[in-house]
Amino acid sequence: MNAHLVTIGDEILIGQTINTNSAFIGEVLSDLGVIITEAHVVQDDADAILKEFDYAFKNNDVIIVTGGLGPTHDDITRACIVKYFNTELVMNDLVLSDVKKIFDARGRVVTKINEEQALVPFIAEPIRNMKGTAPGIFIEKDNKVFIAMPGVPYEMKEMMHNFVLPRLSEKINNKGYVVKKTNLLTTGIPESYLFEKLGDMTSLLNGGKMAFLPSQFGVRLRITVKEETEEQASNKLVEIEQKIRAIAGRFIYGKNNDTLEQTVGKILTERVLRIAVAESCTGGLIANRLTNIAGSSSFFDRGVVAYSNAAKVELLKVNEDMIHKYGAVSIEVARQMAEGIKAISGTDLGLSITGIMGPSGGTLSKPVGLVYVGICDDKICTAKEFRHGDDRLLNKDRASQSALDMLRKHLLGIQYDD
Amino acid sequence: MNAHLVTIGDEILIGQTINTNSAFIGEVLSDLGVIITEAHVVQDDADAILKEFDYAFKNNDVIIVTGGLGPTHDDITRACIVKYFNTELVMNDLVLSDVKKIFDARGRVVTKINEEQALVPFIAEPIRNMKGTAPGIFIEKDNKVFIAMPGVPYEMKEMMHNFVLPRLSEKINNKGYVVKKTNLLTTGIPESYLFEKLGDMTSLLNGGKMAFLPSQFGVRLRITVKEETEEQASNKLVEIEQKIRAIAGRFIYGKNNDTLEQTVGKILTERVLRIAVAESCTGGLIANRLTNIAGSSSFFDRGVVAYSNAAKVELLKVNEDMIHKYGAVSIEVARQMAEGIKAISGTDLGLSITGIMGPSGGTLSKPVGLVYVGICDDKICTAKEFRHGDDRLLNKDRASQSALDMLRKHLLGIQYDD
Repeated sequence: MNAHLVTIGDEILIGQTINTNSAFIGEVLSDLGVIITEAHVVQDDADAILKEFDYAFKNNDVIIVTGGLGPTHDDITRACIVKYFNTELVMNDLVLSDVKKIFDARGRVVTKINEEQALVPFIAEPIRNMKGTAPGIFIEKDNKVFIAMPGVPYEMKEMMHNFVLPRLSEKINNKGYVVKKTNLLTTGIPESYLFEKLGDMTSLLNGGKMAFLPSQFGVRLRITVKEETEEQASNKLVEIEQKIRAIAGRFIYGKNNDTLEQTVGKILTERVLRIAVAESCTGGLIANRLTNIAGSSSFFDRGVVAYSNAAKVELLKVNEDMIHKYGAVSIEVARQMAEGIKAISGTDLGLSITGIMGPSGGTLSKPVGLVYVGICDDKICTAKEFRHGDDRLLNKDRASQSALDMLRKHLLGIQYDD
Repeated sequence: MNAHLVTIGDEILIGQTINTNSAFIGEVLSDLGVIITEAHVVQDDADAILKEFDYAFKNNDVIIVTGGLGPTHDDITRACIVKYFNTELVMNDLVLSDVKKIFDARGRVVTKINEEQALVPFIAEPIRNMKGTAPGIFIEKDNKVFIAMPGVPYEMKEMMHNFVLPRLSEKINNKGYVVKKTNLLTTGIPESYLFEKLGDMTSLLNGGKMAFLPSQFGVRLRITVKEETEEQASNKLVEIEQKIRAIAGRFIYGKNNDTLEQTVGKILTERVLRIAVAESCTGGLIANRLTNIAGSSSFFDRGVVAYSNAAKVELLKVNEDMIHKYGAVSIEVARQMAEGIKAISGTDLGLSITGIMGPSGGTLSKPVGLVYVGICDDKICTAKEFRHGDDRLLNKDRASQSALDMLRKHLLGIQYDD
């Protein structure tokens, strides 16, 4: 089953509103196994809307339209539907009583313009609106489904869950296949290296599909399979995931909506380990990420943002001569910072980071993007060099990701080096 | 001039990524006076992409495509461009040296697949990518402009600002009117209060338009005016801004893309003041925000994330009896934390924060969302209570905003209370 999404509204085109409705509908439909072929945004203009309806209805099985169903002058979607399907508007008593109920509850009088919201195209079934006044429109014609809903996200979502998804599910069940997806989250390896490492895609995926989605936090691998049964789809996903893990497992820190700080926090919590963090270049970002996790006080004791050299010496007991000899951004100082924060906190682990985030401050031998991460536990103190780009804020994200991933590998006994 | 936006990628259609690129491009183009007629999202499928190129090129003056320019098997945009424009790929030495530079800086070897990123369609001018490896593609043909850029938002934005917008500006005819916009950034006052405070909109705006755009960082006021000349438009904007500032000026911390940390950082730098920060509930976020500013080492000395009570006592010299008597989340402890961080750092200012971010940890008398901020300078030590919501991550943003805004008001001699 193919679907075409239409969003109506100038405010989306000019970027004043981000199109989250289309993303929401795309996600819940694809979870049902519907293929979204296109998502179009159209102006508040009758000709453009009619042209779009015609294109969408000719090319797809399901058309879902949002926006332009309200009571004001720029809401023209319903009139376009009436024209396109060559039908007429009829007062629907059930919808009218819904509209009256909403106004009663707010202690307001129902005006003529509000009553007119209860007019529904003759060939359509209304979709009741439990959170607002404009009903949705559901039309079945030529074995195709045409749906229009208001653009207000919570009204649309409620209609999707209570009406649209159950209706579409009935139609999909007999189609004979199941689509499933999963996302593997990697970090510490560039997209092109990962691609080459994974080798021949056809044999790896065995009929499945995979997308590489890079960001400053790493590369997300989205795997999609389409099989005859739920069980076959699950098995295929597991099979592909296992093959990828066998090749690149140590770069994978999580799945789907996991964050690296959640992964690390979970390991620390399970092992009843406490950590303290000493940051220079990331300026508190690592502590901030770790404390984003609810319950982080069970594993996070404290952090020090030692931006000045004085702070490194006074708070972390870094040897001042070392700073002069090797520089504040050096493997030696990173190691001492990790040692210092562990010692003053009495925690099981000390994590440290020092580097040059840019835009200025780089030299030939120590360029912008250079980062050292240190880790100490009760047995060893170690440090490693990383190199990132030249954008300050992206570098902070990347550097914090490198540090948390080195910690993850340390905790799991995975070698640090590529 | 009409523009058609094309976003390529299954991840957008299935709602795994929200289409912020299209919103960004729509906004900056409409600021130039370009009309965005349509915004389409297309599958990672050659036939669909070619069909879309054909439709877009026939119906519009400017076509802007994002996505599908990376190095992996699902990146097929460049191949489709070559096919659609019936051209061929040529190695571009300048782009190749850009690609090599990126890999050199990260200490990584350039593989064949990376080198191939420097292949550019013969009829195109490459758009250099300063933040990644895939160049953009700029084609002028039949008096129309076709532009393709990578889907990575920061790469695309950099190309838009440095290459695409300057090029398009040259081509745009003067239509006989000028649209100008500005954004005033407020914080510390809810949307409805601000709306009531500003009074009658019609007389305030005098023909201009204004939108209230709330987030956890405050309410952004977007003002748009349309006048016959550049000068009239500028004057109208100034007139409206002055009226708003006369009524609600102390809530305004910046304009357009300013951040509160930039505003505060600028004041500290100008006055040659140094600050140190002691955080509990925000877990390093305030230090992180202050160190996001390039050159922050001139005003930021250090930060302490005193998550455990032991850390508050050991690092910040908070009186342990006070914690037992009033609790770690109290106005007394906030004040002592500010005093402590200033004393140990020898800075001009100490800023502190303690609170309950949730989801758990709240009580009847100290609910989730309760926050105390402390500030000490050489003359006074003060603290103030704030109350926020029940979402942990939003509360961290809101709490850090409250603290930085209290610092701003302190530095500018503005009263703290509404």
